Formats: sequence, C-alpha cells, structure tokens
Amino acid sequence: MEPDPSQSPTGGSSSLIFLGTGCSGALPDARCLLKPSTPPCAVCSMGISQPPEGNPNYRLNTSLLIDYCHDDGTHKYILIDIGKTFREQVLRWFVHHKVPYVDSIILTHEHADAVLGLDEVWVVQPRNDRNDVEQIPIFLTQFTMDSITRRFPYLVEQKPEDGDEDAQVAKIDWKIIEDDVDKPFVASGLQCVPLPVMHGEGYICLGFLFGRRARVAYLSDVSRFLPKTEHGKKEILVHNSLFR
Amino acid sequence: MEPDPSQSPTGGSSSLIFLGTGCSGALPDARCLLKPSTPPCAVCSMGISQPPEGNPNYRLNTSLLIDYCHDDGTHKYILIDIGKTFREQVLRWFVHHKVPYVDSIILTHEHADAVLGLDEVWVVQPRNDRNDVEQIPIFLTQFTMDSITRRFPYLVEQKPEDGDEDAQVAKIDWKIIEDDVDKPFVASGLQCVPLPVMHGEGYICLGFLFGRRARVAYLSDVSRFLPKTEHGKKEILVHNSLFR
Ligand SMILES: [Zn+2]
Ligand SMILES: [Zn+2]
Ligand SMILES: [Zn+2]
Ligand SMILES: [Zn+2]
Repeated sequence: MEPDPSQSPTGGSSSLIFLGTGCSGALPDARCLLKPSTPPCAVCSMGISQPPEGNPNYRLNTSLLIDYCHDDGTHKYILIDIGKTFREQVLRWFVHHKVPYVDSIILTHEHADAVLGLDEVWVVQPRNDRNDVEQIPIFLTQFTMDSITRRFPYLVEQKPEDGDEDAQVAKIDWKIIEDDVDKPFVASGLQCVPLPVMHGEGYICLGFLFGRRARVAYLSDVSRFLPKTEHGKKEILVHNSLFR
Repeated sequence: MEPDPSQSPTGGSSSLIFLGTGCSGALPDARCLLKPSTPPCAVCSMGISQPPEGNPNYRLNTSLLIDYCHDDGTHKYILIDIGKTFREQVLRWFVHHKVPYVDSIILTHEHADAVLGLDEVWVVQPRNDRNDVEQIPIFLTQFTMDSITRRFPYLVEQKPEDGDEDAQVAKIDWKIIEDDVDKPFVASGLQCVPLPVMHGEGYICLGFLFGRRARVAYLSDVSRFLPKTEHGKKEILVHNSLFR
C-alpha cells in the first residue's frame, strides 16, 4: 500500500527529515551526568532535564530521511545511515511525521554510529498491497559489506540469529555501490552520486549528492575532502562540524 | 573514588535494579505505531503516549544491574547484559539511581539484545582515585567471546574503530567463564554460579545464581531448563515469561 500523499506533512513535495545531528556518542553524554563536573556540563544537563522533542541538546546519531515525492505524488522514504540510536529515532520522528516504513537505505560507512541499528531493519521493512513484507534495498560499498557480514551474519544470510528461531528475519537486497563520483546509483527512484571523502586518514566515508530541483550534497562524517568531491554544482550543503 | 554509600538509594544494603524487562525488540513495538491496526494496539499506544519513566509499556532490553553492597559499605555495580537499548537505560536509570559507573559486566549470551550496547561500554567505564579509566572485566563464555570478536574487533583489540582515531577506546578485561554450574566465578566480589539453560534448541544461554543472604536465580532468556539447572536452593527466581 502506498502511503497517502495527503498524509505527508509536505503534501506533494519532497523534504529532508534530520533524524539525528549528534556525534557518534550522541547527546547528552552520559559521562557528564554520571560524574558531573563543577559546575555541571550545561549542554548535557539541559539534554536530560527537558523532553527530547525540540531539545537542542538531545541529539541522536547522524541520520537523514529523504521523503522523496515522485511526479505521480507517491512518496518514497530513503534513509541515510542507521546507527545505534535508530530505535529512538523511529519512535520519535517516524511516528511524528507519519512515515510508514523505509523504502531503501544508503550507508555512508561501517562505523557503529552508522550501522548498528541494522538489527532493527525488520521494524521499518516496506510492505506491498497484500501486506507482505518486501525486500529492502541497502546500498553500501564492498568494504562496508565485508564489515556488516562479520557483524550481522544473520542479516546477510537472511535467517534468525542462532538459537532465536522465533525472531523476525529482515528481508534485505544488499546492493554494492562504488566510492566513485562517476558511478551514480538509483535508490527508490532517486539518483544519488557517491562523494568519497576522508574520515580519518586512510578511511573513506561516502557523502551523497542528490535532488533534481535543488542539488543537495550530504556529507556527514568528513575529516578531509578529496579533489574530485569538491567540485560540482551544489545548492544545499549539509556538512558535519565537529568542533575540536 | 568509591561511591559514597549514603548516596545510594539503598544505603548500606544491596539491591537489584531492573534496567529493562522488555523483549528483544523492546516496547513499544514501532510496527504497531507506524502501521496501526484497527483498533490500534493499546499496549504500544500507551507505550508512546506517556513519558517512559513509570510507563509499564515502555520496556527496554532485558538487563539487570546488581548494586552489591560489600561488608565495608562500599557499593559495586554489576551489570548483566548490555543490549541495543543500553544508552537509554543509562540515561534513565543510572542518573536516577546515582550509579556512577559499572564495575563488571556479565553476558548471558551473544544475541543483539544482550550485547549490542557494548559499543557504549566506555561511557560507564570505572575510574580510580586519580580519575584514570580502569579496565572493566566482562565475563562471558568462549562461544560468546567468538561472536563478540567478529562483531566488535575494535573492542577486543582495544583500539579505535578503523579510521576513527579520535574515538574513545574501552579498556576491557575479557574473562572467559564456563557454562557449568560447578564452575562459579567472582565478579566484583560477588560469587556467581552459571546456570546453563536452553534458549531455542541447540543454543545455550546462561542464567546466574548469586547472593549470600538471599539466593537469587536470574534466568532472562529460557526456552527449556537443563536437569542440573533446576535443582538447588533459590529464594528469589527472576524468570522471563514470553507469552505465545
Ligand atoms: Zn556534557
Ligand atoms: Zn564514523
Ligand atoms: Zn503493539
Ligand atoms: Zn536471545
């Protein structure tokens, strides 16, 4: 069943839902709360003392949900990264924005803050008209795939965890992409250009360039740009800014 | 620095803090909220409509924190299982009960709902008088250790994740235990007897028997008992009860 476009908060247009803009450890940092300094950390104190909704200091793992409105008015939901705090992000923002499921997932890299929520994929698995669970495509590099295979063998083999016969099994279509600006791919109808960037020396993380009317460059975990990534027309730049 | 016993909600006695009593997917089940049935699931609707504190239908991954008061009045905090929802459990219950850190961790088995929070261990790492981070012992079977080694190589090698040079590195002392009732071990001064039980046929999960004044048997994920586990004196039995 397609989501009803009139149900979408954006009606007939596309939008970006920032599910998280926090660092890998997320905010508040529990250490500031368990062993408070004198005076206590103002950021984390506020992070815990007000409800998470609208609290600028309750920030979960970096993740973007693209609500992509096709020309026929149907909406597709494309998720970039599914980190450690994904369950909270679904309860908070999917319910609020009436997002029924995720149509495809794109991974920037294989760190815990980008992939550890994969165990929850079955919760947001798309369903067809007959309410059958449909495969969800997950786009990732071979390097990320190798890491996922070690971490989540049961997701790659599409069987329950050993000894957990009653568990829900995610149905995933793993799609290998290349870290190459010249090799765009299409996720749920949206063309995405991989933007390889350095994330610590010797480690490549992907950003993505997408959007027809406005070109959006999403770069969530960058320590240094690569020459090829810097050029090209971008109207909206989403960029991490970890202050050191 | 030892925690001040007078700061503990239990003062000079030991106590059990149930950090979570939910199933592997935790409650509310996001599926009930994203695609509500008619009428909507009452359990999950309540799970999301009231604050998590004191909400009987907001239940995180099964986990127990033993606040163990030694004879000299010092408290040691022993955690059984560190699942997917550990960060939320720290923010909610550690802060509430003024638990400053965890002294040791015991794992029942290697499923995601028991171990996926290991990436957060550095947040609750104990510190000595000089505020230096101390190693945290983690007790687990060799089978669980093998699984953790594949999932969290950076925790076993005690280095940052590849490419993440700035990350905090957990300092862990991995301690192999046997799934044998005749091989008790001591975690932060507390003697624990492993109680092997079946969790799905062919898969062994550990429960634990501990406590001097009251003998507590903690069995969080059991499908079938083994003969050796059934016998013995227990005053308090904590047992999962998943209704099918
Ligand atoms: Zn802080
Ligand atoms: Zn990273
Ligand atoms: Zn429900
Ligand atoms: Zn299990």
